[in-house]
Amino acid sequence: MSFQGFTDVDQLAVNTIRTLAADVVAKGLAPVAHVLFSRFLNFNPKNSKWYNRDRFVLSNGHACALQYILLHLAGYKVSIDDLKNFRQIDSITPGHPEVGITDGIEVTTGPLGQGISNAVGLAIAQAHVGAVFNKDGYPLVNNKTYAFLGDGCLQEGVASEAASLAGHLQLGNLIAIWDDNRITIDGDTAVSFTEDVEARFRSYGWEVLHVTGGDNDLNAIAGAIAEARDNNAKPTLIALKTTIGYGSLKAGSHDVHGAPLKADDIKQLKTKFGFNPDESFVVPDKVADFWAKKAEVGEKANAEWDALFEKYKGQYPEDAAEFTRRLEGRLPDGWEKHLPVFKPEDAAVASRKLSENILNALAPHIPELIGGSADLTGSNLTRWKGAEDFQPPSTGLGSYKGRYFRFGVREHGMTAICNGLAAYGGLIPFGATFLNFVSYAAGAVRLSALSHLRVLNIATHDSIGLGEDGPTHQPIETAAWLRATPNLEFWRPADGNETSAAYLVALKSVHTPSVLALSRQNLPQLEGSSIEKASKGGYVLHEEKDADVTLVSTGSEVSIAVDAAKILQSKGLKVRITSLPCFITFDQQDHDYKVATLPGGAPIVSIEAYSTFGWAKYSHEHIGIDSFGASGPYLQVYKKFGLDGEQIAAKVEKVVAFYKKRGGDIFSPLDTAL
Amino acid sequence: MSFQGFTDVDQLAVNTIRTLAADVVAKGLAPVAHVLFSRFLNFNPKNSKWYNRDRFVLSNGHACALQYILLHLAGYKVSIDDLKNFRQIDSITPGHPEVGITDGIEVTTGPLGQGISNAVGLAIAQAHVGAVFNKDGYPLVNNKTYAFLGDGCLQEGVASEAASLAGHLQLGNLIAIWDDNRITIDGDTAVSFTEDVEARFRSYGWEVLHVTGGDNDLNAIAGAIAEARDNNAKPTLIALKTTIGYGSLKAGSHDVHGAPLKADDIKQLKTKFGFNPDESFVVPDKVADFWAKKAEVGEKANAEWDALFEKYKGQYPEDAAEFTRRLEGRLPDGWEKHLPVFKPEDAAVASRKLSENILNALAPHIPELIGGSADLTGSNLTRWKGAEDFQPPSTGLGSYKGRYFRFGVREHGMTAICNGLAAYGGLIPFGATFLNFVSYAAGAVRLSALSHLRVLNIATHDSIGLGEDGPTHQPIETAAWLRATPNLEFWRPADGNETSAAYLVALKSVHTPSVLALSRQNLPQLEGSSIEKASKGGYVLHEEKDADVTLVSTGSEVSIAVDAAKILQSKGLKVRITSLPCFITFDQQDHDYKVATLPGGAPIVSIEAYSTFGWAKYSHEHIGIDSFGASGPYLQVYKKFGLDGEQIAAKVEKVVAFYKKRGGDIFSPLDTAL
Repeated sequence: MSFQGFTDVDQLAVNTIRTLAADVVAKGLAPVAHVLFSRFLNFNPKNSKWYNRDRFVLSNGHACALQYILLHLAGYKVSIDDLKNFRQIDSITPGHPEVGITDGIEVTTGPLGQGISNAVGLAIAQAHVGAVFNKDGYPLVNNKTYAFLGDGCLQEGVASEAASLAGHLQLGNLIAIWDDNRITIDGDTAVSFTEDVEARFRSYGWEVLHVTGGDNDLNAIAGAIAEARDNNAKPTLIALKTTIGYGSLKAGSHDVHGAPLKADDIKQLKTKFGFNPDESFVVPDKVADFWAKKAEVGEKANAEWDALFEKYKGQYPEDAAEFTRRLEGRLPDGWEKHLPVFKPEDAAVASRKLSENILNALAPHIPELIGGSADLTGSNLTRWKGAEDFQPPSTGLGSYKGRYFRFGVREHGMTAICNGLAAYGGLIPFGATFLNFVSYAAGAVRLSALSHLRVLNIATHDSIGLGEDGPTHQPIETAAWLRATPNLEFWRPADGNETSAAYLVALKSVHTPSVLALSRQNLPQLEGSSIEKASKGGYVLHEEKDADVTLVSTGSEVSIAVDAAKILQSKGLKVRITSLPCFITFDQQDHDYKVATLPGGAPIVSIEAYSTFGWAKYSHEHIGIDSFGASGPYLQVYKKFGLDGEQIAAKVEKVVAFYKKRGGDIFSPLDTAL
Repeated sequence: MSFQGFTDVDQLAVNTIRTLAADVVAKGLAPVAHVLFSRFLNFNPKNSKWYNRDRFVLSNGHACALQYILLHLAGYKVSIDDLKNFRQIDSITPGHPEVGITDGIEVTTGPLGQGISNAVGLAIAQAHVGAVFNKDGYPLVNNKTYAFLGDGCLQEGVASEAASLAGHLQLGNLIAIWDDNRITIDGDTAVSFTEDVEARFRSYGWEVLHVTGGDNDLNAIAGAIAEARDNNAKPTLIALKTTIGYGSLKAGSHDVHGAPLKADDIKQLKTKFGFNPDESFVVPDKVADFWAKKAEVGEKANAEWDALFEKYKGQYPEDAAEFTRRLEGRLPDGWEKHLPVFKPEDAAVASRKLSENILNALAPHIPELIGGSADLTGSNLTRWKGAEDFQPPSTGLGSYKGRYFRFGVREHGMTAICNGLAAYGGLIPFGATFLNFVSYAAGAVRLSALSHLRVLNIATHDSIGLGEDGPTHQPIETAAWLRATPNLEFWRPADGNETSAAYLVALKSVHTPSVLALSRQNLPQLEGSSIEKASKGGYVLHEEKDADVTLVSTGSEVSIAVDAAKILQSKGLKVRITSLPCFITFDQQDHDYKVATLPGGAPIVSIEAYSTFGWAKYSHEHIGIDSFGASGPYLQVYKKFGLDGEQIAAKVEKVVAFYKKRGGDIFSPLDTAL
């Protein structure tokens, strides 16, 4: 770092942030943002995706105006006009930071607690990739992860989960800076948040530092960050005492939390900080020069790293090629050929077990595939043969090279961490739990989708088919939620070929997360399934000319639909069977294919052990469970809810009779105007 | 308590639990369960709903066999045959404890972290009801809440949130007993859970005690519980060192976590504990007698309480009448007449503001209505005029009589606490946050519905209409999830009358939770709305004979549908408009009413600023948002997504033309066979 002591220019730079902030409604943290970005963060604004850059996460995403200001000053592609367009439609400065929208934003934040949990993922990613690729004399990947967070993030359970795991994992590369202003929207934290945060973080295994002069003491701030950066044994929380709205007439009050400053207040603030009260969006030349120099430092660091990597290529050509492949996001050639293929005569297998077989088959060939379970390894069947645990070496339980994660009973933290792992680049993370408990992680699942992150959620025990654990563990509404989420693939494969298809498409969907809903119970291999057909998201499993009815189903119910069809055929009815393992993938097929898969002319009846909500898009009549489940041996539970071949066949007969009696046209539900 | 020192009978009773447990696959905690139930818990098994009973919560619900055994021994309506039917279909001993299924179960547990959070709610409820009704010499409501929890619960974020708040609230009536066996499903907690739990709980403001002899030392266990019970200043965590599967050959191994003991192991265990290895489900007479005496103690305590309440009635007749009303779950006579009624000429108001007006109107008349916000009071508008905060008196910020809660930024904890408040009886709790962050509480929302608890979720900023905060805060998939959840009312009122209707039905739905989705932006009062009509969940807002099209919409989009209808009418089209504020309530109306509300003969087009997923049940064509939202002034965001009158009218014209061209019958989507 070529910058040394703080000078008047630093103070001017801080005040520049403060006055810009007043123009753009930011509320604090100017000094620490200045110190971190100017003295510590290793980045190249001209190449914002440089892999070994330090990662910065604004967990208190509502303070994003501050981040946009720093990105502007530091030379990223954020202009003064972009700052002026803050929170305007189609601007690159939306109301909360969004990855992919704004140059230099690492992860999408705003929903509290997510950013700090993503930061744990980013830090894990560095530890892992560094352990895999660094060599003596080649510290290829050694970046740090810095996060700002507020009182709100600290109260969120997801942050507690991630912080506890970060302590366990001894992530010395993680530095979190807590804006300790004791103010939240409801007012003083005294109304609800009086715990001893520092003691809590120490109990997790973190180092805790504090700075009392967060409003002004640049040296103290720098000293704390330097100490945290140099502590490689533990993650560090820096408790930074600040005054919300420092400089404003309302400093220290929660009035400044939610609303912009009044015009008079902005003027006095600018005057106080030595700026012209009648000018807006001003960056003094000295400050611009200061940041230009910092940008040069970043460019130089990037160039030095490039040179290092060139040397690395010479000495470790295979590692370098592998490193490059991963960074470019290319899967290894021919990986698909390792996906198991099944014939109808093969044994019945639970799809969670099929998933285990796939992980066993793929893990050796896709080394960037990493993941684990929220304390359900033996049930989710996610630990492939020969996996090593990702653990601090001192535990004797694994190493940072390990690719298997023990997330603990922390579903929400797990998924938010996976988002950070995916955002780091070069990794394909998965997390596993029961499908019903993916809901615990809803806040993070949504952000996987919004952030276009390829995160796989392996969700076993996917229905009443789990049996005895009962309704507290049996998802009913979960599929509807996930299917309604934009940019999320919810897969519910019916057999071996469909499970392979689910993995095939999920892994190829570079910008889309997936949930793979897998059965606890055995499923027969279906006549008519194939990886290719299932990869379309939906296909005709069994065609029948002039069918009297189409049965459409997913996952473990497809074979029950086949049972029902046999009974119906024995009664002289012609039955088409369609399997629909992934709605969103099916929706992307062309219109003719879709209508041929779910044609008009005869009623279509859906069969699924979930809420029927949402099925009307694909079927005229729906057989499902619009109540909660029940505890018992699974075949009895299926029977209780009318989901066996006989009861379904009886209902379908009723359906066929109803439509015959009614007469009139039966159009495909997909034959619509919009 | 008439029981004194522990004798041989106690040891026999413990061993009875252990051998029954081996028969029913329970795995530990026999000694503490015996000590707690026999020496501390105040209950009357003949009247399990006695209001002042101590509450017991098994947060590690997978250990429910133990709880069923204790309920059986203690004299609740759980027979030996019920124990034999453990996890069988339609038994009263399902795989996890379910309130309403089994006598003596207070809350439904199993999803980890929920039970301990419910226990915080139960403890708050006691503190509040006690503060309101107790008088000098009349400790009418002074029960304690005891919870068992395991390592899994301690790792869950929801439990962290609730425990932090419990510490802040100084809930001296709460005693949590941690089964500190260091084993989870993935094995030793060393793989992921190495934090200092005791230090963490102290940081929250809890007292922490520990017992090393959890497998055997009844006196030490009793001593710790007594100390915790007598500490009224703070909640207490008792760390109880136990050995999982104590007595089994596999004691201390995680092998016993997930699977029943082998037959040989059960035999040696029974022999070890002095039982006949060839007999199952044995309760020695001495043990049965022991529990019969304990039951008498409970009956006597209940009778003494009844006598106290009789005296109370004499001295405080009004309080006694009010207390009785609340316990019986009757709302005060005539409360509905305080609901505001609107005319079309009344001003446009945001529905979150309408909700505030309703809370202002109802709060004085429904004193059992209590609740608060997850740090969004000023945005959710949930604090009614004259509300007092629920706070420990020592803070100077309120009292336990207070009915308004500062939940902090803890959505999941808030909702789980509300479940506990509702389960206590005599209270109607609400929690508030933005609709998008109700998802953070998904695990608890599901349990409100499964447990039939009247919990109101006030969910403001319910769509892209929140504007500038952008896609991280704009729900898209949330409505589909909530509508697919059984026994949950998702209300999205369109104006003042509909908001009143939503509260009317939600408060009258004694066994059903509700989510009230409310707008940030102003909504006009609609011509054609009324409380009565909206209470049906759906109704024709504007009828038109031989309509060319029906527009169906909810909430803030109904007035946009009205705009679109005006444009369409100006072009000569006849437009029916249907408002559908609550699907599940509408579904409960009779078939003819439903078909009249959404009739066939012309296409039905839905208009809603959410995912269109699920609308096909009610409409042929759907206008919505099947992507994430955008940051900007809200009218511009609506325009960007095609949701203004003009763009909708253009699409509807296309729809009408499509159906005319296609010809054929247009049936009501509600005209189905099943």
